[in-house]
Amino acid sequence: MDFDTIAAVATPMGEGGVAIIRVSGPEAVETVDTIFRGKQKLSTVDSHTIHYGHLHEPKTGDLVEEVLVSVMRAPRTFTREDVVEVNCHGGIVSVERVLALILDNGARLADPGEFTKRAFLNGRIDLSQAEAVIDLIRAKTDRAMKVALNQVEGKLSRMIRKLRQNLIEAMAHIEVTLDYPEHDVEDVTQQLLMDKCQEVKEEIARLLQTASQGKILREGLSTAIIGRPNVGKSSLLNSLVQEEKAIVTDVAGTTRDVIEEYVNVRGVPLRLIDTAGIRETEDIVEKIGVEKSRQLLQQADLVLLVLNYNEELTEDDYRIFEAAKGFQVILIINKFDLPGRIDLEEIKRHFPNQPLIMTSAKEETGIDLLEKAIAEAFFSGKVQQDDLTYVSNARHIRLLRQAEQAIDDAISGIDERMPIDMVQIDIKKAWELLGEVIGESVGEDLIDQIFSQFCLGK
Amino acid sequence: MDFDTIAAVATPMGEGGVAIIRVSGPEAVETVDTIFRGKQKLSTVDSHTIHYGHLHEPKTGDLVEEVLVSVMRAPRTFTREDVVEVNCHGGIVSVERVLALILDNGARLADPGEFTKRAFLNGRIDLSQAEAVIDLIRAKTDRAMKVALNQVEGKLSRMIRKLRQNLIEAMAHIEVTLDYPEHDVEDVTQQLLMDKCQEVKEEIARLLQTASQGKILREGLSTAIIGRPNVGKSSLLNSLVQEEKAIVTDVAGTTRDVIEEYVNVRGVPLRLIDTAGIRETEDIVEKIGVEKSRQLLQQADLVLLVLNYNEELTEDDYRIFEAAKGFQVILIINKFDLPGRIDLEEIKRHFPNQPLIMTSAKEETGIDLLEKAIAEAFFSGKVQQDDLTYVSNARHIRLLRQAEQAIDDAISGIDERMPIDMVQIDIKKAWELLGEVIGESVGEDLIDQIFSQFCLGK
Repeated sequence: MDFDTIAAVATPMGEGGVAIIRVSGPEAVETVDTIFRGKQKLSTVDSHTIHYGHLHEPKTGDLVEEVLVSVMRAPRTFTREDVVEVNCHGGIVSVERVLALILDNGARLADPGEFTKRAFLNGRIDLSQAEAVIDLIRAKTDRAMKVALNQVEGKLSRMIRKLRQNLIEAMAHIEVTLDYPEHDVEDVTQQLLMDKCQEVKEEIARLLQTASQGKILREGLSTAIIGRPNVGKSSLLNSLVQEEKAIVTDVAGTTRDVIEEYVNVRGVPLRLIDTAGIRETEDIVEKIGVEKSRQLLQQADLVLLVLNYNEELTEDDYRIFEAAKGFQVILIINKFDLPGRIDLEEIKRHFPNQPLIMTSAKEETGIDLLEKAIAEAFFSGKVQQDDLTYVSNARHIRLLRQAEQAIDDAISGIDERMPIDMVQIDIKKAWELLGEVIGESVGEDLIDQIFSQFCLGK
Repeated sequence: MDFDTIAAVATPMGEGGVAIIRVSGPEAVETVDTIFRGKQKLSTVDSHTIHYGHLHEPKTGDLVEEVLVSVMRAPRTFTREDVVEVNCHGGIVSVERVLALILDNGARLADPGEFTKRAFLNGRIDLSQAEAVIDLIRAKTDRAMKVALNQVEGKLSRMIRKLRQNLIEAMAHIEVTLDYPEHDVEDVTQQLLMDKCQEVKEEIARLLQTASQGKILREGLSTAIIGRPNVGKSSLLNSLVQEEKAIVTDVAGTTRDVIEEYVNVRGVPLRLIDTAGIRETEDIVEKIGVEKSRQLLQQADLVLLVLNYNEELTEDDYRIFEAAKGFQVILIINKFDLPGRIDLEEIKRHFPNQPLIMTSAKEETGIDLLEKAIAEAFFSGKVQQDDLTYVSNARHIRLLRQAEQAIDDAISGIDERMPIDMVQIDIKKAWELLGEVIGESVGEDLIDQIFSQFCLGK
């Protein structure tokens, strides 16, 4: 493929010791050479070497930055193109100036995800691997990162390829049968096709079983903390969100109003819904009541319903009970250090099968049990993948579901002794759908859309 | 010097394409070799080369990350020690895992600024150069960055060394005079000492002239936007803080409550005081009134006093006038698009020598003039350094002032024909004070204190 030369800041925005501006494309070395002064011209250096020097504005000769430059020549690079990485001081102004200088001297600003897109288009990785790169960066827990890393390394791709290989073999057999009907022993063909299809169907079903967990690992479990004012939601939240556990994410391109807060609870990434609403107010006057609780529930996968052990149930509590019915709820009876006035039997009557935890945010008791209950809500009754090959991406899940349907159709066709070329259509469809997972025969629009969700500089 | 091996994340925290974990010290290569699997052992590779591979947990063999590793051997490195930089995916979890793995296998977590501190202690740079490294990273404007970069490159150091050389020569002359009094021609000595001292004094005075601007370039000009409710402060603020100009800094280690916001106005970094207070409220009901205005003024170097062209002056306006007297004020008569009801003469009477700008935040007129007035408030009547050697650091300024005083004392001594060994004491004192700027004979406490203000990983 024929590409131009692109550049972008590859490190996170903000102040730090070092920042990297990455340049990739046929003119990468030449572009940086124009502005670099060091011991050697970069065009003469060995691949995969590092060079100290200074960047200068070529027209005026003005000094712009002190840098380390890494030169990596195609094809052993992230993009399979020539890549030059400029390490400069990690200040906001420094990074802006260096990037501007590079853009002024031959490179174009890269689109989000464009480096990874080139790694895909140049054939270094397939689409599912490329998609996992951003999952890896956004991972909120160790487990989520391992899942993404396995996918980057091609584990899911190999599974998909194996399935497609099975389907290709089935299709080859059908071709032979159609071309040389005189050789066909119908029962043998039927049996062979059925075996292949069943095998593929089982494997797809197994993959899809990991989908709900995979998706949560990837995107977080949307969790609402609800309850009427003054039951202790904010201090409970603070117990969960200890500094080392909370990952706060500013959604790119927006102001600090939109903040996603994740808590890693025993490997389960909780995405906390609107904690600002809980935190902004003092513990004593927490404002979240019935109406707000109802709103929070609309986005929730998991509901932490907080009650006050020290008070009798109120009309508002009952209204919140009604709103929370049908959700996956963990009941938290807080202020357990105070005398009991709540009617536990009544709560059990409303939520007969939901876990109920007694806590005291003040005494910091019960938090452990709560964490255990949250982890269980995620893992219990579901397959826990030890090899960490989850299907986590909504696009992959959709394609696998469609492929499963096509295989089901093929199996019904075989069962009902449909003409074999009809069966072939379904098998081919499944083969194509699986191909889309790894990026075979997908359109440019889809590719653009996938990579536009990446961060800049990747 | 004998140091252990340290490691830290060198790139800003947050999500990005790439992150760097920097390792420095005698065991840097060995430490990373323990966990790295690639084509070659890192202990066998050439200096300043880059290697693709994977990090594994050495005990379990678990895959941890896909990485590029840069090996740079002493002494041609940032710290003058062996340095290994591990480039991994720029995700929060990824970075944490890689750092933890390196810390588990032989490195200690670096203190803030410890890499730069080693560059200083190992003699690669002097103290004023080291201090400029963090100024460079924190620079809010191009000009501030250029000043810091010049200082990193040793421009200030060379000036200081030249001054000290002059003083050494003076002292040598005094020594000879004291040792061989029979050779001395008193008048000649007096003249020579006076010349040297005058020369040094002038140079120090010239440097100190740059101090107030230098300090503002480095730290920003504390700017308060005041005025009674509903005069248009927040829309005016928004006109100034266009996206490309605002640099928002979260103060390290605190929550998002403490935010410093900088605006680059024609090269002058304004540090806006408590803009959250202005922004949180709707334009129409801005809450900042007399009391809040008084509070904001306490920290301000520059005051932007906003008035409503469309309304008569109120009691509150007069109270704010009183509070703002004595400050450097720019008067902003906003809502100039509406009919005029304000008494301009009355305003001029209160602030006879302050610039007055008519603006309409709504029509976006006058903003340009306002920016010009702000830049002038900074530059006018002061030396503008074209070679960009400013003294910007409060420690340097204090030492230079003290050195200037010591030289003044020496000059008075010469004038008054004091005994020459008394004059020598003052000259030596000036020489020592200048030495402290570049870190000669400074105590460990001071060094620790300076580097503790650095960011992690630098």
